[in-house]
Amino acid sequence: VVATDSDATEQQSSGGDGGGAQGSAVRGALTSRSIAALAGVSQTTVSRVLAGHPHVSEATRRRVERVLEETGYTPNAAARTMRTRRTGVVGVVVGRVTNPFYPQLIEALHREITARRLQMSVWISEGDAEDGGELAVLDAVRRSALDGLVYTTVTSDSPSLRAAVERGAPIVLLNRTIPELRADTVASDNHRGAEAVARYFLAHGHRRLGLVSGPANVSTTYEREAGFRAGAADPAWSDVDVHVVHGDFTHAGGADALATMLAGKRKPTAVFCVNDVVAFGVIDEARRRGLRVPDDLWVVGYDDTDMASWTSYDLTTVRQPVERMAKIGVDLLLERIAGREPRRPRDIRLEAVLVIRSSTASAP
Amino acid sequence: VVATDSDATEQQSSGGDGGGAQGSAVRGALTSRSIAALAGVSQTTVSRVLAGHPHVSEATRRRVERVLEETGYTPNAAARTMRTRRTGVVGVVVGRVTNPFYPQLIEALHREITARRLQMSVWISEGDAEDGGELAVLDAVRRSALDGLVYTTVTSDSPSLRAAVERGAPIVLLNRTIPELRADTVASDNHRGAEAVARYFLAHGHRRLGLVSGPANVSTTYEREAGFRAGAADPAWSDVDVHVVHGDFTHAGGADALATMLAGKRKPTAVFCVNDVVAFGVIDEARRRGLRVPDDLWVVGYDDTDMASWTSYDLTTVRQPVERMAKIGVDLLLERIAGREPRRPRDIRLEAVLVIRSSTASAP
Repeated sequence: VVATDSDATEQQSSGGDGGGAQGSAVRGALTSRSIAALAGVSQTTVSRVLAGHPHVSEATRRRVERVLEETGYTPNAAARTMRTRRTGVVGVVVGRVTNPFYPQLIEALHREITARRLQMSVWISEGDAEDGGELAVLDAVRRSALDGLVYTTVTSDSPSLRAAVERGAPIVLLNRTIPELRADTVASDNHRGAEAVARYFLAHGHRRLGLVSGPANVSTTYEREAGFRAGAADPAWSDVDVHVVHGDFTHAGGADALATMLAGKRKPTAVFCVNDVVAFGVIDEARRRGLRVPDDLWVVGYDDTDMASWTSYDLTTVRQPVERMAKIGVDLLLERIAGREPRRPRDIRLEAVLVIRSSTASAP
Repeated sequence: VVATDSDATEQQSSGGDGGGAQGSAVRGALTSRSIAALAGVSQTTVSRVLAGHPHVSEATRRRVERVLEETGYTPNAAARTMRTRRTGVVGVVVGRVTNPFYPQLIEALHREITARRLQMSVWISEGDAEDGGELAVLDAVRRSALDGLVYTTVTSDSPSLRAAVERGAPIVLLNRTIPELRADTVASDNHRGAEAVARYFLAHGHRRLGLVSGPANVSTTYEREAGFRAGAADPAWSDVDVHVVHGDFTHAGGADALATMLAGKRKPTAVFCVNDVVAFGVIDEARRRGLRVPDDLWVVGYDDTDMASWTSYDLTTVRQPVERMAKIGVDLLLERIAGREPRRPRDIRLEAVLVIRSSTASAP
């Protein structure tokens, strides 16, 4: 995803297509050269000040900044992009932001991206080709409007992901992995995190377990499901039953899944949910039916969103280290943007810790 | 916020500052001219297809799109910006996204912005000059990296807002207003919405009222506070007491505010909160103290976020029409971007409806 000079020059000289805008007034004719003259420094020094380069003395920096302030000059983003072939924009693709995990991830990514003086563009898309958000990312990838992309939700058949890979655009997958794709992944250790939940249930006497899972083609779904099943298959315990219901990662989906489980023969006494928002839906459905949590039903989530610790839910959950995930993800992406490709794609797994609260009864 | 050609040309020709990038390989030498030749159409037609222009026959559009697909050509975003003086990027400034109102607003704005084939960049900032997010928006405004800005949280002394106004950048304020600023505002009718809550409390026998307000310099705070006080001052009722505590718009702030109110002499029996997330904090603090909602305490929020209808809170609240707010806001912004400035700034107020749920006892 780099600007190609020939392309740009061609389009500029061919011009005319853009309508009347080209003829309108040009605002100011300041250049970095005139700023340098006014401040009595070299043009290179002006560029360094603008780029936040450390090798500029405090006095010089102030002098240049005063001139910049007085003249109102700042280098134009498009011009800079033409020159450096960097847009300075990092794209972030998230799922439905009404799942509180995504806002927290956006906040963490925003912190990391702006700290590096980059701009964050956001798209909401689950990777479905028919989705307006997905088409918009695809368009941005094709227009080279980004230096790189962080996918926090994606499936292997996402059109924008395929386009990005074909063009060799820098990408990193956060909280997701696609085994057949040569891309860096940063995620929590979903398998172990989920396995720990099953062991915790069994150790506290539960034998009829429920799992509210997600859509089957998503890595968080199958990794957490495999981990939970592995934990439940511990030969130390017999007569263990696992009832799996696939939901859609939403609050309403969680409520429906519990209704399905309770309509079955062996009703679960402890339910693990693929994420926190699903767990809130399970708790709400349980309450609506007059069941008490945890007395009648244990409920565990995954993520440890802020809301999980609010008194009304006080949810036992598997904590994802969101801040670290964002930091490592942005670091990896910037390495790729800078052209430092690793030999093999990296699959970084961060420890996922079970946090016990009152939606389950007792310490592990 | 337009690209200035002289500026751009100057910087390109002065070059060199950007390091070695300029010398690196140019990927492909396709231009809209070669696409036109391959498709057997004029260059203008190619531009029209790329811009989604309606005056192109279906057959021609398909032929051009096939060539675009085969060659992998798309116009480079930076080149397009240089030519059209539009970045195609709309900036959105939101508050802490752990308040679920902002994610819903982001989702609605994302839908409106991408539907118009524009790109959404997001910054998280409350307008504080020391804030990393605020500095990042300011930088983007100065670099002309945006066509316009939607502020969903802002105070009159926000540096990026001042810079945007000075430069004549198109802006619109959503869910906020700054009376002294000549800018379009789209918000709910905060005064009436809050007034309706006070009347509802009084009509149901409450006399000791609580208001958990927000920071004093924010329009949603003072408009809702004034409306609530006006409703409580209805001469039809006597001996009405209003205890106002200023919080910080957060869950924890709501919990603290209730604790302060309950430490007072005349403990409130009904509390109105400046937003939903504060109301969740009040409900959670009430429960933590063994108080029952609504039996011992009525609680009302403002926003009607998705969560408000979840069983565990089932919050009575004032509904903000988020979708309409986003649509009207983006429409106004695009008018300004297109250069169609209204004579006077518009202050559009959308009806705010009280939605009764079980955090209060009965129908109004």
